[in-house]
Amino acid sequence: MNAELNVVKIGGNILDSPSRLSDFLQLFAALPGAKVLVHGGGKIATAIGEKLGIVSRYEQGRRITDAETLELVTMVYGGLVNKQLVASLQALGCNAIGLTGADANIIRANRRPVATVDFGFVGDIPTSGINQRSLNVLLGAGLQPVVAPLTHDGNGTMLNTNADTIAQELARALAPDWNVRLIYCFEKPGVLRDASEDSSAIESIDRNTFDALVAENVITDGMIPKLQNALAAIDAGVLRVVIGQAESLGEMIAGTKGTQVQ
Amino acid sequence: MNAELNVVKIGGNILDSPSRLSDFLQLFAALPGAKVLVHGGGKIATAIGEKLGIVSRYEQGRRITDAETLELVTMVYGGLVNKQLVASLQALGCNAIGLTGADANIIRANRRPVATVDFGFVGDIPTSGINQRSLNVLLGAGLQPVVAPLTHDGNGTMLNTNADTIAQELARALAPDWNVRLIYCFEKPGVLRDASEDSSAIESIDRNTFDALVAENVITDGMIPKLQNALAAIDAGVLRVVIGQAESLGEMIAGTKGTQVQ
Repeated sequence: MNAELNVVKIGGNILDSPSRLSDFLQLFAALPGAKVLVHGGGKIATAIGEKLGIVSRYEQGRRITDAETLELVTMVYGGLVNKQLVASLQALGCNAIGLTGADANIIRANRRPVATVDFGFVGDIPTSGINQRSLNVLLGAGLQPVVAPLTHDGNGTMLNTNADTIAQELARALAPDWNVRLIYCFEKPGVLRDASEDSSAIESIDRNTFDALVAENVITDGMIPKLQNALAAIDAGVLRVVIGQAESLGEMIAGTKGTQVQ
Repeated sequence: MNAELNVVKIGGNILDSPSRLSDFLQLFAALPGAKVLVHGGGKIATAIGEKLGIVSRYEQGRRITDAETLELVTMVYGGLVNKQLVASLQALGCNAIGLTGADANIIRANRRPVATVDFGFVGDIPTSGINQRSLNVLLGAGLQPVVAPLTHDGNGTMLNTNADTIAQELARALAPDWNVRLIYCFEKPGVLRDASEDSSAIESIDRNTFDALVAENVITDGMIPKLQNALAAIDAGVLRVVIGQAESLGEMIAGTKGTQVQ
């Protein structure tokens, strides 16, 4: 039987709050067994970019990554944020190793083709983009990868890639070798039946209940593609996808908090 | 018999020149066997620091690392410079993995005590500071570490550490397991008998000839501690230390160029 692997994704809501981040890292470090942390960027890239005179531009909710923005995110996500997380986890006894997709060639991506919008140096991960062999060497040595939202194109160029997507592709690619749980930490305690009521988190969603909840207009807007991706991960062999709050990491893994997609 | 390992250090004179860097990376990628690249920072940290309003201060030739300078070097050395090197090496078929001392806990350092000068967040590497086990796992998996001039204190804080020192400590710590050659790429083709004459590189130096060359005033100033460190590395089991130009990497390893300290 395969061993358990928890792939945990955190975003700006945790990274931008020192006290929440510190609490989260203690919970993450205490998790037994193999684990991967995937992090987003947070507000610091924008703040440092402003000081450097780099204006952040967004289209369709994604940052436009021109050449100087690519340098900015490479240094902030791949350097500052990633190494501070690694140093903090090491202090907590977690043998973290910080990685971008270029390191050990773990994630190769294709620069997104220009359609109506030129997103610049943004990478989409093809089916064969994840290097399971390298990841398994690191995990097998008891190392805990901390992955920045950066990939490379294999021709010497770094690419900016969405952290949610990286977490999902890592989980899918590692599913044949591990019992993978994919955990998305976000603002709310789960997928809510009533957006104004934090206590209304839906305990469990599968493909059938998902269709019904969309038909009832309980699941709407941005939550629809998020859950479609989660269900696709399940179809690809991921044991479970859990959506909830970073503060409940242990309970999300135990199955007693958050929305469990299965 | 132990396998060969080349530990190669490059500094600003290579990093600041795109064409020299590109040529060097091709030579490095083509080296057979296990290898480690240790890099300095170059001018880019100062340039980005100026844009961010961080003034670089130096004492005794070393950058004073206050809290905001630590953030600067963590992002520029650990992110921008390191990841661009890794992506470039990957494009050349070299399975590089970028690391700071915090990653996989490979180099733990102590913050330098305040004597006459407070250097700030600068780390000195104690005898037990290098984690050979983690490095051997990576090298054994065919990965080529690319090491930024950053360490950590084990308590969650990154530290700025001289790249020459990191290269030397890595070479010494790995000497029991590998036949280590430590190669310093610098401006000149070797230790020169006549500073104005590039063709005057001394072929070979050992402890006896070193003492004689110092007595003759051939070896002076900053070259004295450099060679003392090289001789200490030899005493600690490093097979050979070579000092020369990046363009001659292959010949330095073959023993036909550069100054061979043994």
